Amino acid sequence: MNVIGIDLGGTKLATAIFDLKGNIIYKNILPLEKRKGEEVSDLIISQIDTLLLNANTDQILIESIGISVPGISYPESGKVWAPNIKAWNDFPLMDILKSKFPQLVFKIDSDRACYILGETWLGSAQGCKDVIFLAVGTGIGAGIIVDGKVLRGSKGIAGAVGWLALNKPFEEKYKSCGCYEYHASGDGIARVAKEMLENEIDYSGELSSHDINSLTAYEVFEAYDSNDPVAKKVLDQAIEYWGMNVANLVSIFNPEKIIFGGGVFGPGARLLDDIMYEAKKWAQPISIKQVKIESSTLGGDAGLIGAGKLALDNLSNK
Amino acid sequence: MNVIGIDLGGTKLATAIFDLKGNIIYKNILPLEKRKGEEVSDLIISQIDTLLLNANTDQILIESIGISVPGISYPESGKVWAPNIKAWNDFPLMDILKSKFPQLVFKIDSDRACYILGETWLGSAQGCKDVIFLAVGTGIGAGIIVDGKVLRGSKGIAGAVGWLALNKPFEEKYKSCGCYEYHASGDGIARVAKEMLENEIDYSGELSSHDINSLTAYEVFEAYDSNDPVAKKVLDQAIEYWGMNVANLVSIFNPEKIIFGGGVFGPGARLLDDIMYEAKKWAQPISIKQVKIESSTLGGDAGLIGAGKLALDNLSNK
Repeated sequence: MNVIGIDLGGTKLATAIFDLKGNIIYKNILPLEKRKGEEVSDLIISQIDTLLLNANTDQILIESIGISVPGISYPESGKVWAPNIKAWNDFPLMDILKSKFPQLVFKIDSDRACYILGETWLGSAQGCKDVIFLAVGTGIGAGIIVDGKVLRGSKGIAGAVGWLALNKPFEEKYKSCGCYEYHASGDGIARVAKEMLENEIDYSGELSSHDINSLTAYEVFEAYDSNDPVAKKVLDQAIEYWGMNVANLVSIFNPEKIIFGGGVFGPGARLLDDIMYEAKKWAQPISIKQVKIESSTLGGDAGLIGAGKLALDNLSNK
Repeated sequence: MNVIGIDLGGTKLATAIFDLKGNIIYKNILPLEKRKGEEVSDLIISQIDTLLLNANTDQILIESIGISVPGISYPESGKVWAPNIKAWNDFPLMDILKSKFPQLVFKIDSDRACYILGETWLGSAQGCKDVIFLAVGTGIGAGIIVDGKVLRGSKGIAGAVGWLALNKPFEEKYKSCGCYEYHASGDGIARVAKEMLENEIDYSGELSSHDINSLTAYEVFEAYDSNDPVAKKVLDQAIEYWGMNVANLVSIFNPEKIIFGGGVFGPGARLLDDIMYEAKKWAQPISIKQVKIESSTLGGDAGLIGAGKLALDNLSNK
């Protein structure tokens, strides 16, 4: 018996067949290429068809599929809200898949829930009952496990830590994404760098060779490695915010571990010591001694592996 | 069958016999009067003796006792850490009580856990599965219920929200109590008022009639009611912090309800609309629409009632 994990991102679709121990038997990644609405579910369906064909050839039985979506999954209605996929506002993904594949069971969950599920299955959260995955990419979100179970909240949208209020007073620019995400997400790092460069008239460092309007966090990290003063200021500020976020999650949850992942960690992994140094200033002093912070060992596969775990856990509903 | 609830505070001891519906049949409150160490447990024992005598007279059977402590309870060791009671650092309360009353079952929990348990039993959290009690008194802590269960964390010290990092940069003065508690606890309100008064040379308002060094939050609220400009500045800042705290708990937990209690709410209850106005600026915009904020209807009895609920829930262990 095997399961299928599907990780739908804002720009690509990863699919895999897992055995029950988490080994990947077959894996594929496709770009979404501006697909929207049912074009995206059609792509998912065609990928499932391909996987089932492969499974059939290898005489592997598939009964369960887990899907990670870049947004919110509403388990009661089976609908999905995914802000970065056009026409996926209340998109009826579960109904579409069930009617196409009535022989299979499906489970859909948010990417942040899948990240931490993936880490508890095969990553650095194995054996942890109170553990948090901080996904720092285009935006910021957290997958939180409390006493062995994913924290969902009253309406399924818990973990929206990008909205954390970390520096007063409130500014209008925080309105669309939240104070924390504004400053310390991947987009935030590029945004803050742009703001700083606009005010540094005499600057002629590495970042001035880039178009300021299409600057990326990756380029800021590159400049940081060459001791660029603006890049250093931008990332020092981000370290302060990441540290405050760690501190607040530690004081609130008293977790065993916080795992940094997402596109920014990645290159941000080298900053973990600095982040912990900042967090120690702020956090509940006993709790901060009990927590470890690490960067994800699963990297870009955390969501896909978490989707596999979703499918595995859902086998009993077959 | 009945149960006993005991609420040990930093300055007083409240005890009560509850029936299974939560009606209080007998209640007593005593000051601790500088008792420390075993003097405090002796007082608890003598109060239990009194309650058992009363119960016996009324032919009521008591089998279970719940105790709320002002600090942290370690269920595995049965020890208690209570910073405001002298010589209660790792105090073996459970062993002492069990050896004195072997016929009874005991359950000890932190005051913040008891507050929210009390609210779910008889207060405004009845029927809620995702709900938070914010205790704003001398310090600040939160009792948090996630999917119907008290959030404890890996080592039992979750909910230490007084340590929330809400305004950078870090200042040394936050070191002993945390940034949020420094500004917005009962002690914090008095502290900030004192700081502001020291800088307002021309001030001759209502607060100048008090000794600046023994100012209380209660006096600041009184001055606020007479439109005192310093009191207004102090509480406006506190409202900002309380609003940011609500926002952060909403973005993280997506709760149904947040209940303000403790000595400050109390007089702070009139400020809930202002707190919500502030919270709405910062929080995850969907989640904040799904939450209600209220002040505790149980008031000073929340911990005592929660202790009764502890005892009730523990009856099955008899």
